[in-house]
Amino acid sequence: MAEREQTSERELTAADFPVLWPVTTRWADNDMYGHLNNAVYYQLFDTAINGWIIGATGIDPVSAPAQGVVVESGCKYFRSVEFPHALTVGIRVARLGNSSVTYDLGLFDAEGDDATIAARGSWVHVYVDTDSRRPVGIPESIRELLTTAQTGDPS
Amino acid sequence: MAEREQTSERELTAADFPVLWPVTTRWADNDMYGHLNNAVYYQLFDTAINGWIIGATGIDPVSAPAQGVVVESGCKYFRSVEFPHALTVGIRVARLGNSSVTYDLGLFDAEGDDATIAARGSWVHVYVDTDSRRPVGIPESIRELLTTAQTGDPS
Amino acid sequence: MAEREQTSERELTAADFPVLWPVTTRWADNDMYGHLNNAVYYQLFDTAINGWIIGATGIDPVSAPAQGVVVESGCKYFRSVEFPHALTVGIRVARLGNSSVTYDLGLFDAEGDDATIAARGSWVHVYVDTDSRRPVGIPESIRELLTTAQTGDPS
Amino acid sequence: MAEREQTSERELTAADFPVLWPVTTRWADNDMYGHLNNAVYYQLFDTAINGWIIGATGIDPVSAPAQGVVVESGCKYFRSVEFPHALTVGIRVARLGNSSVTYDLGLFDAEGDDATIAARGSWVHVYVDTDSRRPVGIPESIRELLTTAQTGDPS
Repeated sequence: MAEREQTSERELTAADFPVLWPVTTRWADNDMYGHLNNAVYYQLFDTAINGWIIGATGIDPVSAPAQGVVVESGCKYFRSVEFPHALTVGIRVARLGNSSVTYDLGLFDAEGDDATIAARGSWVHVYVDTDSRRPVGIPESIRELLTTAQTGDPS
Repeated sequence: MAEREQTSERELTAADFPVLWPVTTRWADNDMYGHLNNAVYYQLFDTAINGWIIGATGIDPVSAPAQGVVVESGCKYFRSVEFPHALTVGIRVARLGNSSVTYDLGLFDAEGDDATIAARGSWVHVYVDTDSRRPVGIPESIRELLTTAQTGDPS
Repeated sequence: MAEREQTSERELTAADFPVLWPVTTRWADNDMYGHLNNAVYYQLFDTAINGWIIGATGIDPVSAPAQGVVVESGCKYFRSVEFPHALTVGIRVARLGNSSVTYDLGLFDAEGDDATIAARGSWVHVYVDTDSRRPVGIPESIRELLTTAQTGDPS
Repeated sequence: MAEREQTSERELTAADFPVLWPVTTRWADNDMYGHLNNAVYYQLFDTAINGWIIGATGIDPVSAPAQGVVVESGCKYFRSVEFPHALTVGIRVARLGNSSVTYDLGLFDAEGDDATIAARGSWVHVYVDTDSRRPVGIPESIRELLTTAQTGDPS
């Protein structure tokens, strides 16, 4: 049932995600209400996914023959976070196809006693040929990395 | 079936949305690939929803006794758009509850011959008491406005 | 004297700038204090300058053989502005060199009874060869446009 | 002479700044040219200054009786930086007045063999009463902190 699933989802912790990527907040991230603006969460997810991939594979996103293009994204916001707190993005590969990958993401405090999940994101990258913009297979070095973060849905 | 729905969804036009709100793009919106960064779409949706509500009701979002907080958002990206093109956000109220409202959003070119939908967004606002942060009924002037944008799902 | 100059500078109006470029604000632009974040002003200046140049010359900034690179920028903030107000950027070419151009910029309300200047910006673009990154002469079509906005310093 | 000063300025290193504050870059920071957009530098300066002050004094910028408002900022860009590199902002208090403080800022790579300065910023905060918006003396705990970063101009 929806209600049970949601309860469970809010109980996820950083330990449910195989990769943890540190991200930071900025003064300008806080909106009129003094909390991170909702669009910033997507900037943080994007930064964590690409930082992880670039750091591990050394691929240059601009000159590479294949690019990961976002075709769908989503986020559920459970509690507010704000500058100047440091945060952590949990990354899990939920589905790995031929040319696409679906990420399951969690946003957490980097430290401190509130270990609850602040937000849960979803993200679909489709790899396309840089010139023709047609879908291509995920580059091998990236695929190998992604398999290391494949775990079952924890919620 | 999923495939049929998706085909239909990509055939939405600006005429399927009861409210059309103009938004503009910025140099900094374009990312390394020369197109609008995926997080910018959410900034545009946010701007359209709030610009429409503030413009029509005169409510000041900071001092108002109730605030609309984003609890969920999502976007499907169909084709790229880029600075310096002007864009239009189509707004439809998909569901209107006691304290929450779900928006169905479409992103279109402001003008020009490509009338196809560039992206489709979803957005859930829950109204909370500014002080207690507990859900409250949607303020009456906002509810009245929202009812004017309630139409059936066109896709 | 500094004091007199400053007084004069704050008396500039939109009429002192030969080009007026409309820009809009976003929900996410407002910071914790409910006003446009200081870095957003630079996004607006950038958008006005590039929107004006691209619109008038048809040049594609990514594929063009020469690119305008920002080597210096600055802003004096006179009064706050905020979403959802529409704004206008006044553009004046203060100095036109062989490979560089210095802009004098003013930020104004798009409409309404407050005609005073909200901020004054400065901006230096140096044109470089896209491949070698070495300074080159300003492309001819851009130079022609820039000369149309050359006026004496009004302050 | 201008030329000598500029040469000297480009020779500044992190050692010339009494406070070093780590900042990170984001995917969305890179613009069409693959480098950090010029407005992002100001976000980083803002984040470093406020992160340093909030971290050391525990002051809450929203509820505090006095707020630091930016009245002037500027930046000279010496070389490009880009995501995913980590960066460091050097902070120096160049002038400390009754209600205003002028910062001298340097942007550097967080690590790696390029120790040269990437950009130099300037920043003026004026403290105002949160309610009346009139200038007030810099709060004592902040003033004490600022004096620890006062050094002579190294360039």
